Amino acid sequence: MATKKPKIRTMEELASAIAVSRPTLSRFFQDPESVRPATAEKIRQGLAHVDYVPNFFATRMNRRASGLVGVIVPLLTDPFFASLLQTVELAALEMDFTVITQCSHGSAELEANAVERLLSMNTEGVVVAPLGEYGSADALRQLGRSLPIVFVDSRPAEPYTTIDFVGTDNEQSIGLITDYLCRTGAPPVYLGMPRLNSNGLERESAYRRWMAGHDLRPEVLPDDLAPQSWAFETYAYQTMDALFGQGLYVDATILCANDRLAMGALQAAHRHGLFNSRPGARTRVRIAGHDDHPLSRFMTPALTTVAQDIDTIGMTAMSLLASRIRSGKPGEETVERTFPAALKIRESA
Amino acid sequence: MATKKPKIRTMEELASAIAVSRPTLSRFFQDPESVRPATAEKIRQGLAHVDYVPNFFATRMNRRASGLVGVIVPLLTDPFFASLLQTVELAALEMDFTVITQCSHGSAELEANAVERLLSMNTEGVVVAPLGEYGSADALRQLGRSLPIVFVDSRPAEPYTTIDFVGTDNEQSIGLITDYLCRTGAPPVYLGMPRLNSNGLERESAYRRWMAGHDLRPEVLPDDLAPQSWAFETYAYQTMDALFGQGLYVDATILCANDRLAMGALQAAHRHGLFNSRPGARTRVRIAGHDDHPLSRFMTPALTTVAQDIDTIGMTAMSLLASRIRSGKPGEETVERTFPAALKIRESA
Repeated sequence: MATKKPKIRTMEELASAIAVSRPTLSRFFQDPESVRPATAEKIRQGLAHVDYVPNFFATRMNRRASGLVGVIVPLLTDPFFASLLQTVELAALEMDFTVITQCSHGSAELEANAVERLLSMNTEGVVVAPLGEYGSADALRQLGRSLPIVFVDSRPAEPYTTIDFVGTDNEQSIGLITDYLCRTGAPPVYLGMPRLNSNGLERESAYRRWMAGHDLRPEVLPDDLAPQSWAFETYAYQTMDALFGQGLYVDATILCANDRLAMGALQAAHRHGLFNSRPGARTRVRIAGHDDHPLSRFMTPALTTVAQDIDTIGMTAMSLLASRIRSGKPGEETVERTFPAALKIRESA
Repeated sequence: MATKKPKIRTMEELASAIAVSRPTLSRFFQDPESVRPATAEKIRQGLAHVDYVPNFFATRMNRRASGLVGVIVPLLTDPFFASLLQTVELAALEMDFTVITQCSHGSAELEANAVERLLSMNTEGVVVAPLGEYGSADALRQLGRSLPIVFVDSRPAEPYTTIDFVGTDNEQSIGLITDYLCRTGAPPVYLGMPRLNSNGLERESAYRRWMAGHDLRPEVLPDDLAPQSWAFETYAYQTMDALFGQGLYVDATILCANDRLAMGALQAAHRHGLFNSRPGARTRVRIAGHDDHPLSRFMTPALTTVAQDIDTIGMTAMSLLASRIRSGKPGEETVERTFPAALKIRESA
């Protein structure tokens, strides 16, 4: 820090320090090519000699291009959404967009509020990982009428006539792991996830279809509908602890709808000693997941799963949104892009 | 959705639809009490009959109170920072602030850019979990001169004369777990974390002091300085895998600077069969962590650790920031609040 630059607080002070008019300065910030080249140069040199941070919104609020995009996720603490957010943000950074992140914290009301806030902030488009609840369907529909939206990971509660969607091909991913489990041991029963978004139902249906298509009897746990909870590990632990405690499924193959469920199931299996060599046991329990959570390979036994291609999904969603923003025509032709998952064979199955 | 309200896009259209002047409407949005009560009522009734989302920034950019606070974290995918962000955001929501989250993705340059962006956005104050790198020290100092800042979790690279800080009392937390480990078995060696922020050094010093104070010899692994990596699990796995492979520390007590390191160390211990009953072994390896990561209790063996009080830390940081914003006097009297951690005794030690 050599000599201290004068501190400038307002556009008025800045105009006077650089000796240009206030309207000229505004035009320069909105579009440097809208003022004469000599004036632009004078302003640039002037800016180098003062301590002034241009107001992001003052220079952008009148432009169509605010440079802002919104992202709405249901939860910040789920590593899947954290990774997705990280990838979308890095892609946006590359494309010179600034991301405003909003979290619905699992609540339809907060999701609707997040939509309102992003609309009021002049965002140019929004990537939404929706909750899939009807409580926010109106707000999302309003957002879709005003701005380009790309849904990512799961689909909204109400079907749209035109909807851009980027996510995993659940039919492929579930088929891949079910096929692997059937080739290497007993056909799996399926531990479903709480019905919080479209993935729960899609993966269960994919499992049922695959089994039926191979003349196998599908069996979905639990037989009552799962409660609305995002505490997947605890939910799965309690479900499987109760079943193992009754001597059920102790040598079954259990395919879990996601890795966080599988982590809870693993713990229940440990508690009941199912990974110890039991005298007389011909087979032992096998547990598999879906997602490839960053810690899945650090579980004991390391978790067999299918890896969602989060980097590709996040980058594709952001690229698609950027192209919708540039074309200015939201949703004229629907784009749906799903990506295959990759098998990660480890020790648990 | 009953009758469809007319869609209003600009303040001009809105003024004309409600039949008030444009300046009056602006004044109303900036402060409803600045217009006559009858006019305010007329505007409120008019707003109920149109489809208009007020521009967040147009109504706030001229006010001192933008209602925006910034949060900067080093990483979105580390569950500690994800939980911290979630708590700060929920606290901000309670206090009617809108959070703009910025992530430095572990880069001092991106951290400095995030600071610039938050300044340009008229945020009223910022909660920063700093990287602790010198590359962004100037930017953070500039931020601190312009706005209230509260540092959270770790301290910036350069000492400030006045600095608000909220975090864990590392002296207490490390003392607590070291004491527990000494009472129940061999005194621990310490597996340090890469030197990415002030916690690494603080926890190591706390360990050394506690051991010296109890006439025990401290021993810190690895003996060379750890590389600058946020992939803690992999880093710890590789470090301990190499040491266990040489037959070293196979029956030691290993205190890890955080739980993510402990997860990598657990996996290395499994790979070398250290949790199996080894014939002739009198003691077995014990591993403990620090943080109480959400998955620590789902590890095998479940991880013994000390739990940081993230909810209290996040809420306190946001409350402190809000009081700095209200008083308008950033950093006149420094506030430093550290909170104790709680012992979580599980199976790994």
